[in-house]
Amino acid sequence: MKALIYHGPGKQSLDDHEKPAITAPTDAIVKISKTTICGTDLHIMKGDVPTCTPGRILGHEGVGVIETVGAGVSAFKPGDHVLISCISACGRCAYCRKSMYSHCTTGGWILGNSIDGTQAEFVRIPYADNSLYHIPAGADEEALVMLSDILPTGFECGVLNGRVQPGSVVAIVGAGPIGLAALLTAQFYAPAEIIMVDLDDNRLEIAKRFGATATVNSGDGKAVETIMRMTDGRGVDTAIEAVGIPATFELCESLVAPGGVIANIGVHGTKVDLHLEHLWDRNVTITTRLVDTVSTPMLLNVLRANKIDPKRLITHHFALDQIIEAYETFGHAAKSHALKVIITA
Amino acid sequence: MKALIYHGPGKQSLDDHEKPAITAPTDAIVKISKTTICGTDLHIMKGDVPTCTPGRILGHEGVGVIETVGAGVSAFKPGDHVLISCISACGRCAYCRKSMYSHCTTGGWILGNSIDGTQAEFVRIPYADNSLYHIPAGADEEALVMLSDILPTGFECGVLNGRVQPGSVVAIVGAGPIGLAALLTAQFYAPAEIIMVDLDDNRLEIAKRFGATATVNSGDGKAVETIMRMTDGRGVDTAIEAVGIPATFELCESLVAPGGVIANIGVHGTKVDLHLEHLWDRNVTITTRLVDTVSTPMLLNVLRANKIDPKRLITHHFALDQIIEAYETFGHAAKSHALKVIITA
Repeated sequence: MKALIYHGPGKQSLDDHEKPAITAPTDAIVKISKTTICGTDLHIMKGDVPTCTPGRILGHEGVGVIETVGAGVSAFKPGDHVLISCISACGRCAYCRKSMYSHCTTGGWILGNSIDGTQAEFVRIPYADNSLYHIPAGADEEALVMLSDILPTGFECGVLNGRVQPGSVVAIVGAGPIGLAALLTAQFYAPAEIIMVDLDDNRLEIAKRFGATATVNSGDGKAVETIMRMTDGRGVDTAIEAVGIPATFELCESLVAPGGVIANIGVHGTKVDLHLEHLWDRNVTITTRLVDTVSTPMLLNVLRANKIDPKRLITHHFALDQIIEAYETFGHAAKSHALKVIITA
Repeated sequence: MKALIYHGPGKQSLDDHEKPAITAPTDAIVKISKTTICGTDLHIMKGDVPTCTPGRILGHEGVGVIETVGAGVSAFKPGDHVLISCISACGRCAYCRKSMYSHCTTGGWILGNSIDGTQAEFVRIPYADNSLYHIPAGADEEALVMLSDILPTGFECGVLNGRVQPGSVVAIVGAGPIGLAALLTAQFYAPAEIIMVDLDDNRLEIAKRFGATATVNSGDGKAVETIMRMTDGRGVDTAIEAVGIPATFELCESLVAPGGVIANIGVHGTKVDLHLEHLWDRNVTITTRLVDTVSTPMLLNVLRANKIDPKRLITHHFALDQIIEAYETFGHAAKSHALKVIITA
């Protein structure tokens, strides 16, 4: 089969690769219909993810059709149309027992990381019963691909951890795909204001169309002043960090109101300065999270009820044969204006 | 009357001072019976608290008897025996409405800070109806003084924010009065382990008597290794920071397990390194808080039911005339082995 292989930092190619086979009774083999590329895949390509070694098939998102299942799989059978979760969960370790599937002791984020992933014609999904979801007949596959990772990540790490509430004031720092996923899902809770912060006017324009009540280009170095003025000097109830660098996290520290939350979504490669000399007495909460995908069933319901349109995040389409070009397009988003790309296998 | 006056960094004296008078209808004047000294008073003496200006009577803890009340006070009358809360609350601003009394827009921690405090024969208490508590007849005044600040602070900022739960593993970094207050109140929730960390063997010995299941002297620089070994490499569910310096906060970052909480109580004068490069995907929560004293009624019930003995925190007694000596004793705790001191007015 064709598969996108990581050959070490900066090196990848679309190669012929052996088809995956069942290796445990709880496995399923899924024939991929649609997949996508995640910002995390770009981190892998930079060599930032040491658990992902050369020779690995990348990708942890997608939809497809079950080809075969192991003897221990009871919820799925060949021919079933399925959504693949980015998180694999055994369902019985101490972390799974408390719904922290991201830290499953034998699962978690392993797809396209420590085991082969979805940017291929076929993929082996471990713990299939806990890691796949049935797709309702007639559902839009491309919309569903957004439920593998990006929507639950924006929702769980940003909106749920950030305790977005009716009437609250939210700032989302970073209007990339993940910040926009937080923006879309924050609106479930009717916040009074969602202020989107980015350096790219094109992305801020998209954010406005997606429901931001205000946008701030932080390029002038005055984002704190501007947002403090917007909030009568109080700051925001929820600051969602959706970039992953010290400057944007520290911006969130300056924006958060007493009693507020900084919900980190960004993947950070370095430490940040935490200004406890200002924050120790401000009753703030800071959260970090790798998505647990506890909200996937909820998001499937939201999608079924047409309360969200995740296809708005999709800007480009490619065939699997064009995946190298898809990486180019996604990796140079400032130029290409790419948000999420769909790859058809 | 006699009062302990702050005259600027390093300078204080017990002076004759005018008796306070009612200045607003919601005020009460309380004749102090017992008061104490807080670590925060030492911060003021170092010049760390710019809102506290020379000429101020220090102190924000105490019990006493109402002498007079303003026309707007309805819950108290002269002669009532009262506990003074360290937090004054108007009860009607946006922060008070959500029980975040610490950030009351016209109150909060003002006693012995921006208005005169309790280390005197009399004190004016603003918003008396919301800032005083009736004391049951026959209650022990010295035990009650611990409910003005230290017990609710250890409990709310450490134990409640730290989400201490039955069976959980807790580390408390810092076995000073505030860490010990967290230790005493953490036991309400039956955690499996409470590991106390400090540099002072005397304090660790006290912590053991107060209910710590293990103690670690971090002087050898191996506290992380030791605690990781104690927890099968997993870390702790709750790390309570009760010191207020970068080294102890960063120790908490190294100790917290995936899904765990770092609950900061310490008063920090400088930024700390937040290692998001390790923590971004560990589903941790970090909290800060100035005590709201929302738990004071609860703690009064606990005290009435004899489920806690806060007098264990009291090591020294002084008369108001000896308050300079009391500061000396409290300020050199390593030598004096002082925890809390009681000052009788």
